Amino acid sequence: MSSDISPVSGITRRPGGVRAAVQVMAGYTPGEQPRDGQWIKLNTNENPYPPSPRVIEALHGAITGDRLRKYPDPLGTAFRHTAARILDIDPDSIIIGNGSDDILTIVTRTFVSQDGVVAACTPSYVLYRSLAEIQGARFREAPFGSDWSLPPPFVFHEADLVFLPNPNSPSGTMVSSQVLASWIDELGRPIVIDEAYVDFADQNALRLAANSNIVVTRSLSKSYSLAGLRFGFGVAQPAVIREMLKVKDSYNCDALSLVAAQAALEDQDHLRQTRAKILATRRRLEENLRLLGYDVTPSQANFVWCRRHDRPVRPIFDELKRRQILVRYMSFAGYGDGLRISVGTDAEIDRLLDELRRIG
Amino acid sequence: MSSDISPVSGITRRPGGVRAAVQVMAGYTPGEQPRDGQWIKLNTNENPYPPSPRVIEALHGAITGDRLRKYPDPLGTAFRHTAARILDIDPDSIIIGNGSDDILTIVTRTFVSQDGVVAACTPSYVLYRSLAEIQGARFREAPFGSDWSLPPPFVFHEADLVFLPNPNSPSGTMVSSQVLASWIDELGRPIVIDEAYVDFADQNALRLAANSNIVVTRSLSKSYSLAGLRFGFGVAQPAVIREMLKVKDSYNCDALSLVAAQAALEDQDHLRQTRAKILATRRRLEENLRLLGYDVTPSQANFVWCRRHDRPVRPIFDELKRRQILVRYMSFAGYGDGLRISVGTDAEIDRLLDELRRIG
Repeated sequence: MSSDISPVSGITRRPGGVRAAVQVMAGYTPGEQPRDGQWIKLNTNENPYPPSPRVIEALHGAITGDRLRKYPDPLGTAFRHTAARILDIDPDSIIIGNGSDDILTIVTRTFVSQDGVVAACTPSYVLYRSLAEIQGARFREAPFGSDWSLPPPFVFHEADLVFLPNPNSPSGTMVSSQVLASWIDELGRPIVIDEAYVDFADQNALRLAANSNIVVTRSLSKSYSLAGLRFGFGVAQPAVIREMLKVKDSYNCDALSLVAAQAALEDQDHLRQTRAKILATRRRLEENLRLLGYDVTPSQANFVWCRRHDRPVRPIFDELKRRQILVRYMSFAGYGDGLRISVGTDAEIDRLLDELRRIG
Repeated sequence: MSSDISPVSGITRRPGGVRAAVQVMAGYTPGEQPRDGQWIKLNTNENPYPPSPRVIEALHGAITGDRLRKYPDPLGTAFRHTAARILDIDPDSIIIGNGSDDILTIVTRTFVSQDGVVAACTPSYVLYRSLAEIQGARFREAPFGSDWSLPPPFVFHEADLVFLPNPNSPSGTMVSSQVLASWIDELGRPIVIDEAYVDFADQNALRLAANSNIVVTRSLSKSYSLAGLRFGFGVAQPAVIREMLKVKDSYNCDALSLVAAQAALEDQDHLRQTRAKILATRRRLEENLRLLGYDVTPSQANFVWCRRHDRPVRPIFDELKRRQILVRYMSFAGYGDGLRISVGTDAEIDRLLDELRRIG
């Protein structure tokens, strides 16, 4: 293909006909996923405990030739009714997703035109920038306050869509629903409240999804230990959900993940038990990191964000990796760097703390 | 939100901030999926036979807490190496997809800007128009010849991306790889050869994916009986695959579907046996439909396209539905209507033919 200028888009066409917006972007890099079992993985916020035994049982029961050979229910009706009952919301206010990343993509494509504007606070989940870039939209960011408070809403006045993870990553901090409600009201723009980590927090903002500007997203990857199965969902007014349904792939969720997700939500006791263990380990991790001289941000998620004011943390990350412990090193322009450490089992966190003491 | 005019895109913003491109579209409607077991489903081209027993076995073995709680391999490395060996291609020329629909979406977003042009022949798979509409692109179609031959390539000269299902749906017809190669050469635009049904045909065009303009897509939904699991893949030059990887959701394929897809490809004997049964039933279906007065297009897929020159077929569709047999009624502007009938088991096709005889 030639390197001509497309008269319609004004974008230079590169060899192969790939959109310039795609060619110039680096692409989102997910956390490392080593495939052997020797690593202590504290880098992608997976749950260290297995999913509910009811999920395992339901999956084995669901593996029939008939279920595999037929297309799944495109709307996930059975799952939506279960989720609606447990969360006390309208089934028609729920859209199913192939992980909550799928929902984030669907929302972006529903609300943001090419040359539109996606906005987010920083430091935050770096995928939001990638979603803007893929769509060909501009990305605007504004820093959180030093106490992780929200910037004034007017800084996002031109946004077609704002992403706000709550709890935020990498900080693990949370904006209260009350503050959030008035901030969104003043914002007056469509917003995604990304509640991927909310099951580890003291509160959530699901009720706000009754407002027309708001989509709340949930993931089963973290709190329900189902990262491998890819399941999440979005909650919004039914009129907004109907628009999002036009954008999603018809059969975006497979028959087994639908069964597993439903079984996972049915076992709220398992969620409570797993959550209690992770919160206890999180507290211990925070306390011990402080004793080791780290600046630790109090977390409402299943990870802890820590920094050092006395030296760079990149060498600590490298040393941990050399010892087969993976955490996430993150650096943000105008902010600095830090380590995001997922809350593992007690044994994993003990091993991490031992190595950190040795590294000194 | 206000109903103002966005200065950037020139598109009227509707209440809720949803893109006008999305608001005005109807959305793709997949074939009906009744959830009770009383129906004979010949409407969505599912395979009437179960997947390989090796798939079932692999799935049961894959359900471990550790696999479920951890993120899957974003690149599907093990699957790609298996597919590369069986298809005799480079693993880096393969991208994994959550069904081949996912790949079609990824290719669209990689090659087509908003206000770009997507093109396809007609009558064909109606999803292509939806993909264009979601992207905000224009959709251009040109009719197949009366013998289902390709239109002259110059009619698509302005296309950023051309979709060509081969075999085509609903016709079940196929363009030979030789004709296709020279047609694409003359076209000189990026093209997707959608080979969702190719395992039921006499040949395929996989070798053409070595050319820079071409992406070949495959589905495990039909020939491998895995519609419920959502797995497909794309084949193109590694440089094109790298661009597509930026666009796809990082973890678009779940851990269980990756295991199942690999096991399915490993059992080529099962594929051959299933294929042979379906081809024998297809021949019998075609012959009997002709005896009943239908105009039947010889099929290279797992469905048969038939019409009547003496009367409309919509009442026949309705009568079949009343008798709990679902086929697909399709009508195309400038062409007319017909019934697309999936090749079911022999018993299902016998029942269909009996009812057609009764309907008369």
